[in-house]
Amino acid sequence: MVTIKDVAKYAGVSVATISRVLNENGYVHEDTRRVVEKAIKELNYTPNEVARSLYKRKSRLIGLLLPDITNPYFPQLARGVEDRMQQSGLRLIFGNSDESQQKEQDYIQTFVQNNVVGIIASTNFPGMDFYRRLKIPVVFLDRISSDRPAVYADGREGGRIAAQQMIERGSRQIAVLQGPAHVRPAQDRFQGAVEVLQDTGVTYEVVQTDSFTLDEAQRRAEELFVSFPETDGVIASNDMAAIAVLHEALRLGKKVPEDIQIIGFDDIPLSELVSPSLSTIRQPAYDMGKQAAELMIQLIENDDVELKSIQMPVQFIQRGTTRIKAEESI
Amino acid sequence: MVTIKDVAKYAGVSVATISRVLNENGYVHEDTRRVVEKAIKELNYTPNEVARSLYKRKSRLIGLLLPDITNPYFPQLARGVEDRMQQSGLRLIFGNSDESQQKEQDYIQTFVQNNVVGIIASTNFPGMDFYRRLKIPVVFLDRISSDRPAVYADGREGGRIAAQQMIERGSRQIAVLQGPAHVRPAQDRFQGAVEVLQDTGVTYEVVQTDSFTLDEAQRRAEELFVSFPETDGVIASNDMAAIAVLHEALRLGKKVPEDIQIIGFDDIPLSELVSPSLSTIRQPAYDMGKQAAELMIQLIENDDVELKSIQMPVQFIQRGTTRIKAEESI
Repeated sequence: MVTIKDVAKYAGVSVATISRVLNENGYVHEDTRRVVEKAIKELNYTPNEVARSLYKRKSRLIGLLLPDITNPYFPQLARGVEDRMQQSGLRLIFGNSDESQQKEQDYIQTFVQNNVVGIIASTNFPGMDFYRRLKIPVVFLDRISSDRPAVYADGREGGRIAAQQMIERGSRQIAVLQGPAHVRPAQDRFQGAVEVLQDTGVTYEVVQTDSFTLDEAQRRAEELFVSFPETDGVIASNDMAAIAVLHEALRLGKKVPEDIQIIGFDDIPLSELVSPSLSTIRQPAYDMGKQAAELMIQLIENDDVELKSIQMPVQFIQRGTTRIKAEESI
Repeated sequence: MVTIKDVAKYAGVSVATISRVLNENGYVHEDTRRVVEKAIKELNYTPNEVARSLYKRKSRLIGLLLPDITNPYFPQLARGVEDRMQQSGLRLIFGNSDESQQKEQDYIQTFVQNNVVGIIASTNFPGMDFYRRLKIPVVFLDRISSDRPAVYADGREGGRIAAQQMIERGSRQIAVLQGPAHVRPAQDRFQGAVEVLQDTGVTYEVVQTDSFTLDEAQRRAEELFVSFPETDGVIASNDMAAIAVLHEALRLGKKVPEDIQIIGFDDIPLSELVSPSLSTIRQPAYDMGKQAAELMIQLIENDDVELKSIQMPVQFIQRGTTRIKAEESI
């Protein structure tokens, strides 16, 4: 029996091209189409319908769910995912959940309706039914889960490092911005910081936030210096919040880092360009995205990959919003 | 004859749910599935295969092509597109072209293979064959085209306003950063600025850039003050470039805006939070994305919509990197 491979060989094109001509889905150059149709005729090829429908069923689509692409941390993650997927000819359907469970569920559902072969999600609801029921591979990104493979940074360690650096560099009245309660990585880094502050007995205050929006970051920065005017160090929940604090501190005439030190979290691209440039805990966002894509591709190609999670290291980046230590200035 | 609508009514669910059960594509709750299957049996419904395949053929996917989501201007555009699409139950397949024609062509091709019903693209190659051949609706975003509907901001006017503001606020030795030659909107705003500078006879220098990457922005900012140390005003090609110039100016001990004024372009979210906050020409990026989505939805729903393009207004935002005019300080 003549197979699709025979036709491809005869016509001098790929199997995918033959399939596109047969299924009339996707672009094929007119000349190529003519060559393929001629080959089909001359070889008297009849496509196997079962094989065809199976081939059609498997899409090359991956669903990617992020909280909010306008938060400057997430485009890095997305690029990492996309660049790796692109190498393997996979495409992304993309959605922002705005951290709403309903919106997230809707997206996951339509991802499935669009026949995605896998889902990568920065979810706040890893344990929900709509994830557990999924029969396709799922990788959680920037999140921890016991149910599914996940790629995330060591937030707790990041929080610890931030607090240690603050203390070593001389701050004694520290404010810690606590990120949104429902965002697990924000809580991890907060816990890490508090752990160290409690151990060392340094005075600290906690400022709670409900979201990662820029508006709220600005509001909390203003409140912070009203409520705790003596603050000489701020551990922010992310770089945007840190930049908002820096802006407010300078507006109030404070000297950074002399009067007050600030440490962010993420190392977004612009953190280097504010003045003074922002000291921060770096998460390898681009590489995290890439790793999640890599894990997903393994899962798609081989169902037997064991459940594994990858914790990525974080790192303190010393820039202009923290003071230079004695040994560093030598 | 019993129709799919009858079944939906009988089962008390939507037509889409019946379709999902029939096509076995997409999530349907087990209970619902049982109700639907019972209804089909009891009404003795036989799906019309032609209608079914037509229904299946039409996806709810739109292709969105952007140059680079890590450029902080584009997430705003993407959110605008997505939020409007989401209201109509449409989903986005997303790709970054990195301004490479080959990558762009590959993405457009796979969008089509994935049965998108329309494509929104921030392309630098609007006249290419791979766009002209497309039989589905195309909307160009942040780009101008005579072939297809487009949504873009009035870049030329933006450039003019930037130059006028620079002069009115007292700069006399102005450097203009010229964005990448192949990016049309960058050239429009550059032309607009030069037009005004030539008319008024003010001294100006041009600094050319090849890309919109952060690395290049930093490099050009350094070169600028080496090549033209007397510069007392910089019209940047976008906000990232402006923030890089601001950072370098402060590093060199210049006072902003007293010694040197800086005007950006875009009004990215963080432009407000640098210190001093950045004066800029605002493009309504989110609304541009929304408008492009709106136009696309019209094109999908009604083929007869005439070719139209929407030019969005730009606006000068006075902040801390330009001096206050006499009449403003009263």
